[in-house]
Amino acid sequence: MNQQILVKSYPEGWLKESDFEYKESPIPCPGESEVLIRNQFLSLDPYMRGRLSPSKSYAKSAEIGAVMVGSCTGIVLESKSEKFKVGDTVLNTLGWQTHGVCHERDIKRIDVSKIPEHAYLGVLGMPGVTAWTGLIDICEPKRGETVVVDAASGAVGSVVGQLALARGCTVIGIAGGKDKCHYVVKELGFNACIDHTSHDFKDQMKAAVPKGIDCLFENVGGVIFETLLMLMNPFSRIALCGLVSEYNVNPYGNHSLRSILINRIKFQGFIVTDKPQTWPAIIEELKQAYLEGHLKYKLSQVDGIKNAPNALIGLLKGQNFGKQVVKLI
Amino acid sequence: MNQQILVKSYPEGWLKESDFEYKESPIPCPGESEVLIRNQFLSLDPYMRGRLSPSKSYAKSAEIGAVMVGSCTGIVLESKSEKFKVGDTVLNTLGWQTHGVCHERDIKRIDVSKIPEHAYLGVLGMPGVTAWTGLIDICEPKRGETVVVDAASGAVGSVVGQLALARGCTVIGIAGGKDKCHYVVKELGFNACIDHTSHDFKDQMKAAVPKGIDCLFENVGGVIFETLLMLMNPFSRIALCGLVSEYNVNPYGNHSLRSILINRIKFQGFIVTDKPQTWPAIIEELKQAYLEGHLKYKLSQVDGIKNAPNALIGLLKGQNFGKQVVKLI
Repeated sequence: MNQQILVKSYPEGWLKESDFEYKESPIPCPGESEVLIRNQFLSLDPYMRGRLSPSKSYAKSAEIGAVMVGSCTGIVLESKSEKFKVGDTVLNTLGWQTHGVCHERDIKRIDVSKIPEHAYLGVLGMPGVTAWTGLIDICEPKRGETVVVDAASGAVGSVVGQLALARGCTVIGIAGGKDKCHYVVKELGFNACIDHTSHDFKDQMKAAVPKGIDCLFENVGGVIFETLLMLMNPFSRIALCGLVSEYNVNPYGNHSLRSILINRIKFQGFIVTDKPQTWPAIIEELKQAYLEGHLKYKLSQVDGIKNAPNALIGLLKGQNFGKQVVKLI
Repeated sequence: MNQQILVKSYPEGWLKESDFEYKESPIPCPGESEVLIRNQFLSLDPYMRGRLSPSKSYAKSAEIGAVMVGSCTGIVLESKSEKFKVGDTVLNTLGWQTHGVCHERDIKRIDVSKIPEHAYLGVLGMPGVTAWTGLIDICEPKRGETVVVDAASGAVGSVVGQLALARGCTVIGIAGGKDKCHYVVKELGFNACIDHTSHDFKDQMKAAVPKGIDCLFENVGGVIFETLLMLMNPFSRIALCGLVSEYNVNPYGNHSLRSILINRIKFQGFIVTDKPQTWPAIIEELKQAYLEGHLKYKLSQVDGIKNAPNALIGLLKGQNFGKQVVKLI
């Protein structure tokens, strides 16, 4: 049977397990130019909270009663496409389900000979391209500049920092807890990482950027972003990628906008799917960096599709440690 | 005697008349390459509040005990410069005083044969260049787009709207009170103007931009900006020029930053003095528009230097109606 997680309701406030529903359905049959896929890994990402809402956003809402949206990697079990054969590993957007049928134009073959397939959901996938786009296109970091990224141990933040280090920047991460901070510095090579759960976070943060912040890659929002905004340098740049601390609660009131004025900051929001034409070259660059060992990442894996709702809730609370995936089978 | 207004103290909270001090001093004598000037008009501008503070900003603070900073127009009374002769009208930065000595490199002759001299403190001066820079360089308005500017009847806002109209945009102003809104529509030609003192400002504002906002020239901040931010279109642009509603009170907590993310807004602060090389061409363009009757403005004049402190306080409260100047003599 095809195991699926459907959207049951749009949450008000915090996402709950009861906003999802487990269902078993017959495994579908592929038609002309289609393939049947058995999914292995489901990617969990903060953007998913935005889809679980009736409000207008950059993408359509996930539909009540439909399979929850998401990206997966899986194996072709049956093929009526000339482009794919049984056994191919493919990237797809079947969402939260173990099986499904895709048209050949909607999937992409991935090479798993030297690279684990879940990397295509993280450093070599949407999160990696997100990191590259916000950092390189919007922040435009220069050698010697100070780059700050929050959610630094996560799928996006970890790539941001490593790309900035490779460009000769001083890189300061922010993460929740000592273990994450230790990993960010010792494993990823960041110059420092500040624990935002510390009682003296603001003082530590200020001390960590004695020359101020030139580039900020913002994932979190709330009081963290408000604090960072006041540490920005004249003519600095902020790529606004996410506000994950605000997705399940009322939006935070940010009191630091004066810094944008007096420091002539460029503050820009972006969505990585706006420029699909840039993806292939970016992924190729990330792949090279990965194969050369310059792009490390940590996997946060839960097993079994029934655990996906709880894992997404944990992700939105920052309980994951690294790229969050669900091993479906 | 030279009548002067000195800075007595940096205010906490609202600026007060008692933060200034009146003084009479001997009229100074010009040295080599200097001229003695009798000032006629003093420009009052919102940026002055930022100078009356010990906090770090883009410009040095006005010094306690020194003459308050500002731009003026005046007449050369005595010249030891080969470049200026007695009777020339010159733009200068002598600040809040009736007389003073300037080096020839620090003043600029202005042509008052067809243009009133106070125009060089407004539409053809710093406020005009500010309007042009924020609108054209940062907002990059395109024909048919919707442009919104607040403080629309003021020195900067009035120019923003007229420049945007000349570029084929739909222009909506925001101002405080019916008289200002009437002027903005009837005299300046804006498509509409919303009174932010109305009890249903938010609803009126939303109705005024049925296609959303493509360009926002932001002067005010606070709840007005928070409201406008939620009405921005995908890929819209915001030039942050001022936050005048927040200069004398605690900074407002803006709850609308999510719009920057989901709409991929470019939100950029700027200071007009950053690019002095652009000024001559911009002023020439503004001068042509003025001479052709496409750049109207309203003068808000008080007489006598002793009234300058109160007039600045009024400006910061939005009590002025048009470009605020003090006629010194």
